[in-house]
Amino acid sequence: MKFVIIGGDAAGLSAASRAKRKMAELNVTVLEKTADVSYSACGMPYNIADPERDIEDLVVRRAEVFREKQGIDLLTGHCVDRIDVRGKIVSGTMQDGSAFQFPYDRLLIATGASAIVPDLPGFDLPGVFALKSLAQGRAIKHHLSSHTVKSVVIIGMGYIAFEMCESLRNLGYAVEMVKPRADVLPWLEASLSEVVQQEVTERGVCLYPGCRVERIEGSQGRLRVCCNDKTLSGEMVLVATGITPNSEFAGKAGITTGVGGAIAVDRKLQTSVDHIYAAGDCADAYHVVTGEKTWIPLALRANRAGWAVADNVCGGNVELEGVAGTAVFRVFDLEVAKTGLNEKEAASSGFDPAAVTIRTRSRAHAHPGNSTIHVHLVGDKGSGRLLGAQMVGRDGCAHRINAAAVALQSHMSVAQFSQSDLAYAPPFGPTWDPLLTAANQLLKKL
Amino acid sequence: MKFVIIGGDAAGLSAASRAKRKMAELNVTVLEKTADVSYSACGMPYNIADPERDIEDLVVRRAEVFREKQGIDLLTGHCVDRIDVRGKIVSGTMQDGSAFQFPYDRLLIATGASAIVPDLPGFDLPGVFALKSLAQGRAIKHHLSSHTVKSVVIIGMGYIAFEMCESLRNLGYAVEMVKPRADVLPWLEASLSEVVQQEVTERGVCLYPGCRVERIEGSQGRLRVCCNDKTLSGEMVLVATGITPNSEFAGKAGITTGVGGAIAVDRKLQTSVDHIYAAGDCADAYHVVTGEKTWIPLALRANRAGWAVADNVCGGNVELEGVAGTAVFRVFDLEVAKTGLNEKEAASSGFDPAAVTIRTRSRAHAHPGNSTIHVHLVGDKGSGRLLGAQMVGRDGCAHRINAAAVALQSHMSVAQFSQSDLAYAPPFGPTWDPLLTAANQLLKKL
Repeated sequence: MKFVIIGGDAAGLSAASRAKRKMAELNVTVLEKTADVSYSACGMPYNIADPERDIEDLVVRRAEVFREKQGIDLLTGHCVDRIDVRGKIVSGTMQDGSAFQFPYDRLLIATGASAIVPDLPGFDLPGVFALKSLAQGRAIKHHLSSHTVKSVVIIGMGYIAFEMCESLRNLGYAVEMVKPRADVLPWLEASLSEVVQQEVTERGVCLYPGCRVERIEGSQGRLRVCCNDKTLSGEMVLVATGITPNSEFAGKAGITTGVGGAIAVDRKLQTSVDHIYAAGDCADAYHVVTGEKTWIPLALRANRAGWAVADNVCGGNVELEGVAGTAVFRVFDLEVAKTGLNEKEAASSGFDPAAVTIRTRSRAHAHPGNSTIHVHLVGDKGSGRLLGAQMVGRDGCAHRINAAAVALQSHMSVAQFSQSDLAYAPPFGPTWDPLLTAANQLLKKL
Repeated sequence: MKFVIIGGDAAGLSAASRAKRKMAELNVTVLEKTADVSYSACGMPYNIADPERDIEDLVVRRAEVFREKQGIDLLTGHCVDRIDVRGKIVSGTMQDGSAFQFPYDRLLIATGASAIVPDLPGFDLPGVFALKSLAQGRAIKHHLSSHTVKSVVIIGMGYIAFEMCESLRNLGYAVEMVKPRADVLPWLEASLSEVVQQEVTERGVCLYPGCRVERIEGSQGRLRVCCNDKTLSGEMVLVATGITPNSEFAGKAGITTGVGGAIAVDRKLQTSVDHIYAAGDCADAYHVVTGEKTWIPLALRANRAGWAVADNVCGGNVELEGVAGTAVFRVFDLEVAKTGLNEKEAASSGFDPAAVTIRTRSRAHAHPGNSTIHVHLVGDKGSGRLLGAQMVGRDGCAHRINAAAVALQSHMSVAQFSQSDLAYAPPFGPTWDPLLTAANQLLKKL
């Protein structure tokens, strides 16, 4: 049986490796457009932060290992541009311009997502970068080491923008951040977003939310980001304005796409066309809270979906429950974490949300190292269900959020969650864990 | 209505405060045997670690606040020794020897637990201490500041023993630890226990498991702990050999006691006698995994049970689900955490356990600050249920364990738990969270 995979990163190579482990006789071909496979994209901001570290350190497993040790036919520089779903053939173009064709019995589309770069003047100037692929990470690192950079302008205020803001500040660059919307982190409860803004501002970063970027101009290595009401300048511009799924040729082949333009898949990761699966950042997922389709492209889901496709291609019957949208990022000493729905999302999903926001301490009464922890919880008045959690603080939020993520996975009510037996010792929390204190408060509103 | 509470710490004062808040006209009397109320007993090892900090810092709320601000009739130095369950009267003796009597409509027994001190020669010598009450903490702190102490012998190897071991080593004392059983931490999976032993030993602490202590001898400030095969010596001895519930006079009054001698309570915290509740370290609880009674005296349960009693005394109908036995302690840089059942407990509770132990990394591939994290998971072959989790490591175990604790609370299967959408970012974990990697491994054995 021929299993062809389009895309050689998290989802694609998870599927390839697992399928080959499960069924040694399977003919597994991976077609990767770029020269890079199997790297930790999420690690790029941290690698860029350390000029001593080689960017190639981010490669988890080299192409040769897949080819020679695992027996996977991994082909880089192979850009697929067409799927013939009737003839079960993928075709495309190699880097040298020559055409290729591969017949398949089972196909996995794992083409990931690409950075959105606004179609405005100057976004193609030298010194203007996005950060999604390893090639882009390499280009940024090369630019920083080969040019005299003093100031960087970041367009966007999402995870990547803030992670890069930290990295660049820690390297000593001046950093300014700009975005058109007035809310810095619109998905985060306002007072929690305020905590993030304060942290970033205290570290000397200038934030300009509510500024529409109109063009980038440049001369002699100096770039000017021209907004409706101000102009920012630096020797580098990072465009971190979101990503979009690489689902274009899937759509052309008649495969159904849905939320956010992502390829629609069922719980078995099957697309609308027989024998074709999709996984990773190019595919959608069910949300465990709403039960509806959503597009939240994150690394764990990509790996998990890749495995599930492999299991199903090898004759299994694996169904994935879905995602809770659990996500975390660090910016300087602050951990920003969320899972599930915020109030607005809950309301628009048909729930009748109630929410609380509390400020409490991260450790026991009078314990050294205590810091403030902010918790926001959302529940449903009708059913009493827990719908979402957000946390911001300096002490454990990234790990703490997982207790709420598991609660969402098992559709717990706020009342049940509030009875959870969470760990307590003075160096790690107050007797009533911050999540429990928030749950107790939220119960009064349900 | 007269609500009388015996015991003025976590459970007793949680109940008193909440009852008074809910029902201002309620007549609330708290009878506390000692002079101390409302203090963080768990914080004592950390307070002792810092000679600059006053031990009285551990008092969360002073007696006057309860009396004057909250209108609670809080009486210290009142030792109850008898409950007349027919006449609904508690009686006892004040510190000056005079007798007292209080009639009640509702009674809460929140007498806590006491340190077990073996009935062997020399355990009453000056310089030999247990650590459960604030008075004992005060005595230890006074001894250390007023005597020339170079070496301390700790009898026992439980939470308190290891927390005190860390505190005393950090203060520069030589520390030796001894216990009769050969297993250092018998409830912890062997390889995880080995990690703890190694950490402690590397910090210069000598561990002597498998040594039966026969007596303590002393002269001129020097104490000798005489074991069957060796003698340890120091200027202070800490006895940390466990605790026992203070349920004696409850038993005498005909109130049913059960597991570990603790007072038996139902989910509403009612004892076997009408109108009498018990909460805190003196009372038992349902285990959320087994559904059976257990005695796991910990601070969160005490507070939660105190609140539930108050709610029920004030006309509510609150039922507590129970405990998962989630617990954590720190010893030097190591976090040791557990929730639910270990393999042996699972087998003796009628499950057919399977278990895995994995070693993985605490952060993403090549991320700075990465360290080893050890995870042990137990599941049931019959039902597929998750039964317990244990973690040892330097990076977030105390918070990470809560994800498993919530899974136990909601009776999740290992398969469901393995699908949880846990947070990922390079500074906080690998893409597959260590708990998920362990769950994936465990699934293969179920």
